[in-house]
Amino acid sequence: MRLTVLSGGVGGARFTRGLLALLADRGEPADVTVVANTGDDMWLHGVRVCPDLDTLMYTLGGAVHEEQGWGRRDETSRVSADLAAYGVGWEWFTLGDLDLATHLARTQWLREGLTLSEATARLSARWGLAGQGVRLLPMSDQPVETHVDVGAGEPIHFEEWWVRHRASVPARGFVQVGLAAATAAPGVLESIAAADVVVLPPSNPVVSVGTILAVPGIRDALAITPAAVVGVSPIIGGAPVRGMAAECLAAIGVEATAEAVARHYGRRGAGGVLDAWLVDDADADAAAALARDGWATAATDTLMRDVPATARIAAEALSLVAR
Amino acid sequence: MRLTVLSGGVGGARFTRGLLALLADRGEPADVTVVANTGDDMWLHGVRVCPDLDTLMYTLGGAVHEEQGWGRRDETSRVSADLAAYGVGWEWFTLGDLDLATHLARTQWLREGLTLSEATARLSARWGLAGQGVRLLPMSDQPVETHVDVGAGEPIHFEEWWVRHRASVPARGFVQVGLAAATAAPGVLESIAAADVVVLPPSNPVVSVGTILAVPGIRDALAITPAAVVGVSPIIGGAPVRGMAAECLAAIGVEATAEAVARHYGRRGAGGVLDAWLVDDADADAAAALARDGWATAATDTLMRDVPATARIAAEALSLVAR
Repeated sequence: MRLTVLSGGVGGARFTRGLLALLADRGEPADVTVVANTGDDMWLHGVRVCPDLDTLMYTLGGAVHEEQGWGRRDETSRVSADLAAYGVGWEWFTLGDLDLATHLARTQWLREGLTLSEATARLSARWGLAGQGVRLLPMSDQPVETHVDVGAGEPIHFEEWWVRHRASVPARGFVQVGLAAATAAPGVLESIAAADVVVLPPSNPVVSVGTILAVPGIRDALAITPAAVVGVSPIIGGAPVRGMAAECLAAIGVEATAEAVARHYGRRGAGGVLDAWLVDDADADAAAALARDGWATAATDTLMRDVPATARIAAEALSLVAR
Repeated sequence: MRLTVLSGGVGGARFTRGLLALLADRGEPADVTVVANTGDDMWLHGVRVCPDLDTLMYTLGGAVHEEQGWGRRDETSRVSADLAAYGVGWEWFTLGDLDLATHLARTQWLREGLTLSEATARLSARWGLAGQGVRLLPMSDQPVETHVDVGAGEPIHFEEWWVRHRASVPARGFVQVGLAAATAAPGVLESIAAADVVVLPPSNPVVSVGTILAVPGIRDALAITPAAVVGVSPIIGGAPVRGMAAECLAAIGVEATAEAVARHYGRRGAGGVLDAWLVDDADADAAAALARDGWATAATDTLMRDVPATARIAAEALSLVAR
């Protein structure tokens, strides 16, 4: 079974890890393409930081800081502490020493002329992704940066809004700088076209999956692929499990409910991207309401407590679109 | 007394520290401009590394790794160890974690459009150089990189020849890439013109002081300044005290002796840059030979064992040109 996952950071990475565990349990060889949001990427002190790509790489490579969900295990912050002594800005952004090595290697390769896809493949080699049957792709090789319209002044970088302000400054909207000139990275559209199932994991529907869907060509590829497209709700009982998705949804006028997010994604054939939608038991009403409108839905315990629990969620998602 | 020092890394930094101690001992306010060689600078993993500027900054700021002579005290190498795990090149170049913070801050400022002079002033602020009466200037704000002609293939970066090959590959010559388009940084020519004494400390005469002298305008400024120009020999008893100056001198056909280096620098009024030359007691013969040709010279113990010993050497150098 060929699978393509359109993923943000922590939620998508944990889901994909569960999906791989499921395939391993079943004795099925994995053939998984993960398309990562790169809208959170930024230049910081001259190095290129790609938060979602790195979270995916560390999580699937067994190097992630498990409790935190992102960054490296056994991380230190010698460099960033010393940077702060120079009074250099963005002190609020954690730049771990081990994480920095990833950024420096990537930056060197980008400056040597490699594309982000090529640099990502080189970085992934260290973490054994290919050996697990996983191909990690950025959504685009062109820089796309999500900026947040906060009303006053210029829009600020998403990471500044998200990490520095903890999304506490009301967002009026999001601008993907560079999106119009971006194209899907090599292999992205092909992986959607050739997949048996495309999965929208429980990632942020606005600034993670939403940004991927906004890359020219990706929505069209989803519309015409023979693959089934199934999503897992990132909202449980009216609140995001993690992160500040509610603030992002509010900015685009979508309620933070499992049903509203499903309707925001929309159904294939009706201008949307989904064939099926998995919600939490807490949102059984949402599943029922969607089912009345003809959606393939189900409710289950969708809290990704650990890898086995997540493997079971992945199994439920796949069973929704099993043919 | 206004002083200008044309300095490489370790030798020049230690000499300047001794000079400052001398002025403090004498109760004289320091007014010292240090012009640093930037020919060893390079881009490494996307960050700008300036070895001599940093050695000067750390040494005068009390943060240097004393035994090593360069880099930071209490340094670690978490980032570079992790970079090596990515198989990224230049593993032979030590990139300490604390040192990296300096490179990242500098790189951020350079990318924001600051000149190297401006970035250096910001970095120096942390190390209290201004409070010591020291102004640290790069020789030029334009990138100049010393490459080494090793016969086969393209010339290699000086740091690769020096650090990786420990100067064991015979050099046929040195090329300063970017030199023709470089100009002296703001304040450099002015500091030479306004100085009472210009000092050539015991730095490498070829790839440190030689590179500074090659910046368009600097030799002319030395020729016409009313300041006295005094040098301290980096060669003691036919061998450099530190580093691989002999290999550099061999490449340009100059003997590694205190006398030959003096004659290589030359006397002012005869196409050279020096008024006086201080050598070690071991080279009393060289001093005598130069004196017979009309040079102002003296021999003393020039080994910079510690700060007091270096202060004494600085006093001897200044006394050679005292008016």
